[in-house]
Amino acid sequence: MLGRVNHIAIAVPDLGIATTMYRDTLGARVSQAQALPEHGVTVVFVELPNTKVELLEPLGPDSPIAAFLEKNPSGGMHHICYEVDDIVAARDTLKAAGARVLGDGNPKTGAHGKPVLFLHPKDFNGTLIELEQV
Amino acid sequence: MLGRVNHIAIAVPDLGIATTMYRDTLGARVSQAQALPEHGVTVVFVELPNTKVELLEPLGPDSPIAAFLEKNPSGGMHHICYEVDDIVAARDTLKAAGARVLGDGNPKTGAHGKPVLFLHPKDFNGTLIELEQV
Repeated sequence: MLGRVNHIAIAVPDLGIATTMYRDTLGARVSQAQALPEHGVTVVFVELPNTKVELLEPLGPDSPIAAFLEKNPSGGMHHICYEVDDIVAARDTLKAAGARVLGDGNPKTGAHGKPVLFLHPKDFNGTLIELEQV
Repeated sequence: MLGRVNHIAIAVPDLGIATTMYRDTLGARVSQAQALPEHGVTVVFVELPNTKVELLEPLGPDSPIAAFLEKNPSGGMHHICYEVDDIVAARDTLKAAGARVLGDGNPKTGAHGKPVLFLHPKDFNGTLIELEQV
């Protein structure tokens, strides 16, 4: 089921500082910041040769990463996104295995305009997993 | 400086359960478990098409992931490892930029038999970064 690691998401309290750090200190290629108000985040992509890191800063009052940053004020690794070929088939297999899908269980349109689902971290060793159909 | 994401490490309390989950529930290819007593972990590699996830279980009384699992009993994302061409040059650049290198600052031989360093998570948005010279 699991395909490529599409991205590793890191929640950060200050996107400007984090972007400078990845670009200037760590010498990585970074994108312009993109505000995604419908997802409650502003994102910068750190482009690595084989995958990308997404730096996420909360945007708006209902950001899905606000609670995480309250618990981890310096930021931290937030989730891993894996690509899948068929997200509905993946969901059905996971649910049959007893794994919990967050929300109403139906794929939503993710930050890249593709169908995504999130799996409950308690079912996966404390790791929040996003699945994205590519 | 940053090259490929070599791996994402996930600390787990029970490697058998985690391996079964990644293999059977998530449908990924997983390796045999390898005990690395000199690194204080037993590791299983989850092979994805573009990188790998390493599942780490503590081994022995002084495991470097024991404290993390005390704080996160279900497990969680522990570090990201990036490849670099020249780890001593990378270290010197990072130290000149004010970043803290863990330990005595000298590269050690990592779990893959190559020189590695860890960077202080407080300097990188709560993310523990490993650099590995490839």
